Amino acid sequence: MFLRKFLTLVFVVTVLLGNAQSRKIINIPDIEGYQTLKCDFHMHTVFSDGTVWPTVRIDEAWKEGLDAISITDHIEYRPHSIDVVADHNRSYELAEPLSKQKDILLVHGAEITRSMPPGHLNALFITNANLLERDDVNDAIKEARDQGAFIMWNHPCWKAQQPDTTLWWDEHSYLFENNMMHGIEVFNWGLCPEALAWANEKNLTIIGSTDVHGPMNVKNGHRPMTLVFAKSRTEGGLKEAMFSGRTAIYFENTLVGKSALLEPLFFASLEIEEKPLKLRNELDKTVSIRNNSDLDYELELVQPGVGFDAPTKVTLKAQHVTSLTLSGNSDEIGNTRKLNVYYRVKNMLTDVNENLVVTFTFRNN
Amino acid sequence: MFLRKFLTLVFVVTVLLGNAQSRKIINIPDIEGYQTLKCDFHMHTVFSDGTVWPTVRIDEAWKEGLDAISITDHIEYRPHSIDVVADHNRSYELAEPLSKQKDILLVHGAEITRSMPPGHLNALFITNANLLERDDVNDAIKEARDQGAFIMWNHPCWKAQQPDTTLWWDEHSYLFENNMMHGIEVFNWGLCPEALAWANEKNLTIIGSTDVHGPMNVKNGHRPMTLVFAKSRTEGGLKEAMFSGRTAIYFENTLVGKSALLEPLFFASLEIEEKPLKLRNELDKTVSIRNNSDLDYELELVQPGVGFDAPTKVTLKAQHVTSLTLSGNSDEIGNTRKLNVYYRVKNMLTDVNENLVVTFTFRNN
Amino acid sequence: MFLRKFLTLVFVVTVLLGNAQSRKIINIPDIEGYQTLKCDFHMHTVFSDGTVWPTVRIDEAWKEGLDAISITDHIEYRPHSIDVVADHNRSYELAEPLSKQKDILLVHGAEITRSMPPGHLNALFITNANLLERDDVNDAIKEARDQGAFIMWNHPCWKAQQPDTTLWWDEHSYLFENNMMHGIEVFNWGLCPEALAWANEKNLTIIGSTDVHGPMNVKNGHRPMTLVFAKSRTEGGLKEAMFSGRTAIYFENTLVGKSALLEPLFFASLEIEEKPLKLRNELDKTVSIRNNSDLDYELELVQPGVGFDAPTKVTLKAQHVTSLTLSGNSDEIGNTRKLNVYYRVKNMLTDVNENLVVTFTFRNN
Amino acid sequence: MFLRKFLTLVFVVTVLLGNAQSRKIINIPDIEGYQTLKCDFHMHTVFSDGTVWPTVRIDEAWKEGLDAISITDHIEYRPHSIDVVADHNRSYELAEPLSKQKDILLVHGAEITRSMPPGHLNALFITNANLLERDDVNDAIKEARDQGAFIMWNHPCWKAQQPDTTLWWDEHSYLFENNMMHGIEVFNWGLCPEALAWANEKNLTIIGSTDVHGPMNVKNGHRPMTLVFAKSRTEGGLKEAMFSGRTAIYFENTLVGKSALLEPLFFASLEIEEKPLKLRNELDKTVSIRNNSDLDYELELVQPGVGFDAPTKVTLKAQHVTSLTLSGNSDEIGNTRKLNVYYRVKNMLTDVNENLVVTFTFRNN
Repeated sequence: MFLRKFLTLVFVVTVLLGNAQSRKIINIPDIEGYQTLKCDFHMHTVFSDGTVWPTVRIDEAWKEGLDAISITDHIEYRPHSIDVVADHNRSYELAEPLSKQKDILLVHGAEITRSMPPGHLNALFITNANLLERDDVNDAIKEARDQGAFIMWNHPCWKAQQPDTTLWWDEHSYLFENNMMHGIEVFNWGLCPEALAWANEKNLTIIGSTDVHGPMNVKNGHRPMTLVFAKSRTEGGLKEAMFSGRTAIYFENTLVGKSALLEPLFFASLEIEEKPLKLRNELDKTVSIRNNSDLDYELELVQPGVGFDAPTKVTLKAQHVTSLTLSGNSDEIGNTRKLNVYYRVKNMLTDVNENLVVTFTFRNN
Repeated sequence: MFLRKFLTLVFVVTVLLGNAQSRKIINIPDIEGYQTLKCDFHMHTVFSDGTVWPTVRIDEAWKEGLDAISITDHIEYRPHSIDVVADHNRSYELAEPLSKQKDILLVHGAEITRSMPPGHLNALFITNANLLERDDVNDAIKEARDQGAFIMWNHPCWKAQQPDTTLWWDEHSYLFENNMMHGIEVFNWGLCPEALAWANEKNLTIIGSTDVHGPMNVKNGHRPMTLVFAKSRTEGGLKEAMFSGRTAIYFENTLVGKSALLEPLFFASLEIEEKPLKLRNELDKTVSIRNNSDLDYELELVQPGVGFDAPTKVTLKAQHVTSLTLSGNSDEIGNTRKLNVYYRVKNMLTDVNENLVVTFTFRNN
Repeated sequence: MFLRKFLTLVFVVTVLLGNAQSRKIINIPDIEGYQTLKCDFHMHTVFSDGTVWPTVRIDEAWKEGLDAISITDHIEYRPHSIDVVADHNRSYELAEPLSKQKDILLVHGAEITRSMPPGHLNALFITNANLLERDDVNDAIKEARDQGAFIMWNHPCWKAQQPDTTLWWDEHSYLFENNMMHGIEVFNWGLCPEALAWANEKNLTIIGSTDVHGPMNVKNGHRPMTLVFAKSRTEGGLKEAMFSGRTAIYFENTLVGKSALLEPLFFASLEIEEKPLKLRNELDKTVSIRNNSDLDYELELVQPGVGFDAPTKVTLKAQHVTSLTLSGNSDEIGNTRKLNVYYRVKNMLTDVNENLVVTFTFRNN
Repeated sequence: MFLRKFLTLVFVVTVLLGNAQSRKIINIPDIEGYQTLKCDFHMHTVFSDGTVWPTVRIDEAWKEGLDAISITDHIEYRPHSIDVVADHNRSYELAEPLSKQKDILLVHGAEITRSMPPGHLNALFITNANLLERDDVNDAIKEARDQGAFIMWNHPCWKAQQPDTTLWWDEHSYLFENNMMHGIEVFNWGLCPEALAWANEKNLTIIGSTDVHGPMNVKNGHRPMTLVFAKSRTEGGLKEAMFSGRTAIYFENTLVGKSALLEPLFFASLEIEEKPLKLRNELDKTVSIRNNSDLDYELELVQPGVGFDAPTKVTLKAQHVTSLTLSGNSDEIGNTRKLNVYYRVKNMLTDVNENLVVTFTFRNN
């Protein structure tokens, strides 16, 4: 009897304490035609080898400002199974009501967990994780594919599976050619250069994730994540974008992705003063650039200006206005209508040793 | 000869290093009809008893995101005069070119510095500080008034001048009645409650300032400042607003001012989710409130909701989204069209012991 | 077969990643005769209504620099029991090996969870939690007592159990008089003034704890905790000290406890310059005080110095050296051998409205 | 008359506000035989092209925890001379009384400021800066030498003077060979690799300094500085150590210097657990290392252990305890008395591309 009274009280208290939490805003802008969704598609709970309850993953995602996550408990590795007794859909079922309440997109997922090859693969947007428990790994992956899953190869650089090399095996070619592998985890604890090269070569969707097992411990202001450029903030929108390869990776102060996505993202972050500079020889003129994003963009001049000098290194600091001073160094500058300045963005990678190059065009007259 | 070469080199280097500094953004919104200018009208340089060169005040203001400052060197107290030899306009003249370049509004000012009464007064928007050097304090203040100055009584709570009491002297009534006192410094190192009470009683413009003498040392994320609600970001706009009493004070996480200004500022800081709540008895519904300002608004429920419970304490954290959960507690709630919730904003003061009270109106059906 | 290979690899990786974590140092000094142990005796896991695995509690404690914890899962409230199937000792058993490895003292505990009276009580230093599952609450508490437990009344100020009042019930007198209640939780989410008053009146051991259910989210630099002044860093040392009432509470920048413990703790935090001040009338002399602790001590002058002035407010900032300037104001000061200065420590509480008062004695001649 | 009253009040207030400031502690330990003094020997004031009053340099040094500074105003470049009228010793004279009061060692200095060669040179420990104003640069340097000065070549990498190269000119050989150059500024806004190489080659004393002109703006927790390993904390102690080459440079998280100084500094920062590890084959043992310094030491394994594995990368985090886990991988390890582990310290540089290598020796049996 005391228990019923107790439970009522617990309920009341939870409501009163729970009603005024706060959610961080991740300042990464949308781009023309797409919403930029902040996502993490690789994480664990006590239902495999993680150490938190599934609802913790929703709470963390909400507080940190994410739009979508997937809980991807291992199918084949469940070290807590003496104490935790449930099927493979259970972590999803437990997190799902809270995800609705908090408006977090929860993608049903699981991690197929095998030795190399093919190693570990996440199956996302599945309908029934229990059916992935199969002796033959290809049967498991086929089942995922037949459920309509987006399948990604996890952490190809993981030293535990490939201590001395990072190889693409025949098995991966088989999966890739049979619509059984759509993405590759390019960031997991660190950047995997081989994975980025393969992604660019074969047009695989790039994914960056935490693979978090314990409580999320945010460093550098935010967790590593996948940005998905989606037509809508829905599970369907996510899926279409991921199958179409419209993703980028955000870790520390770095973005990784295709130029076609990173360039509009860069300029969508900025407000650039528009009045004509009226730069003349031996004069200095300053243009103000406001960076509304959370990234400090680190710029390095690619080539000298024509008729003017521009700073060789500039940091467009997050949430700050930066003054860029151009100095006229020839008489012709007075007649130039537009000034083009070319910068390499040191913290925006398009390939292993390649940076995004951006062109600022300032009105002069 | 080496000197000429040296100077050329110095110039080049200054340009190269100086062209990519960054300016903080103070996130305090404009309100309907007015721009919210961030200002500090009380500070010193080596030209009185300060310890920095006048240009430092412009650099600091720019980096911290201020719109306007006034350098208010003491007329009667110049302890560095053995080494620093100049007239009373010199600090303004030295700072003025940099203020233009950095687009900081520099208000010509000076501090008339006498024993109590009347104590210290700042004259702002003057044209010639040298003419304020007069034997009789009233002559000095009249001169300032005749130059069209906005005159404010500085730090009435300063213990050095009034150790045991904080009094309004006959002299201040004289100044007030003769258009020789328009504002009062309500914040200087701390809040002066007497000054706030007098301001509200006599309709004096309230000012909060740093009175900084050494290098600016920003604590709590920003310096104490005066917010001026101006029709334009110009010296004329500033002056009109200040003579009209449209100011507020921003220090630490607190705003002080009239309800008529603070209330629109509060709501301009927020984006409130607009979909109907559809709250019913024994149900919980959550509304998301995004606070785009730099202030954490600390709310305290003024009275219970009619037909529902609302949280008694809520913090709308800066740059975060906060979830506010309402719980239906009567059947009638299902038929209520709008839900009014009344909160006292603990960190918005309208008078010595008075807080702004705000009303949230949420659509229910 | 792949599984065996997989497990080996997991092991290797865990070792390689696990071998260089770092543990914060909590700078709170030992006092004469005792080690100051940093402890948290109230927390939950998935084995009751918490959301983390028991080992998480050890990892958190190690990283944060704690010496001892107790996992106190509810006996009567286990909302995850559909999925998590185990007896009441299981969370202790799972955490225990890691606690040994990390050198954290893990006290076997449980929370007896009833409606008011008597509310919730933690039993610490028990031997078998399963025996606490009894219909009659007094039978459960007697069992704990007979196992040698230290029993504390948890969160007497919890609004869910006492919404409008905070009462000491006859039941609590019964427990207290029958050696069934030894301590009281004075801090749990906030300070409970009634609990502090009762503790001082009845000589109950004071406890401050987190009652954390989800992942530990450290604010203000450290979690709320109980300081235990123990003869040794052992479970026996802890138990003796707690039954002897040698505890204090540390939350935010505040310490709560008996003068006899807080005063030596205060002075053990400081290194005070020892050279004679040679203060004379109309002279200023400065003494340097180094505060090696993590607390900013906020001092307020209790009474004026005899023959000299001392600052009315001083903050001895954590990990800083503070200069304290005394000013001679009478001729006799030249002949005074020792200068006594009396300060109230605003952030050291000995009772509900009572602060520790400390006396600095500086050599003058 | 009001002025006298005013001045008295100013005095009183200054005393009351000034008596409880706090000074940061820089946690860099002393080494055997020497005190580690934290110094900055290059900075400017309004008396040359700086923008702060000389006393500001003392206040900054005191607050930041420095032991010694030198104000080195330019002899030949004084752009404020229209307003600031004084001789070359004036900035020293104005700062000197406060330096005594705050117990900061103030070294009398000046910067001889010429085009390249020889560029700019600081003369430290001079007696009269006015005598350094000479047409011929060598006359000026000789005068400094004859005053007993320690003379250093400033910022050899400064692009304004050597835009495309960093050369050692004949003039520098002349100075070096004639006891007119004793040190070289290896760090000024950035590290100058050529300067470090020359210092090691010619046994010049290395100096790192701020060359600060405006208010000190501390980044990375501390300003760049020179560590001087002195027999006493006196001007004489400083001078002897600097002429003897006992210095190191501390910037960001990096130390630069000779192995003979950096190695004892590294180990003096640490407390290493001393109990025998008793490592055996297929066992893991952990040793705790406490780092009491402000530096995060970044270690990289130089060679595998004999009979055991050690982590390849370890960060000994500042003010933390780090656990280092060794894993036995051969049977012989059981009979080994001492375990040697060799790490390269990535953030301790002994030459341009050379790191300090340290050996940990742990007792095993």
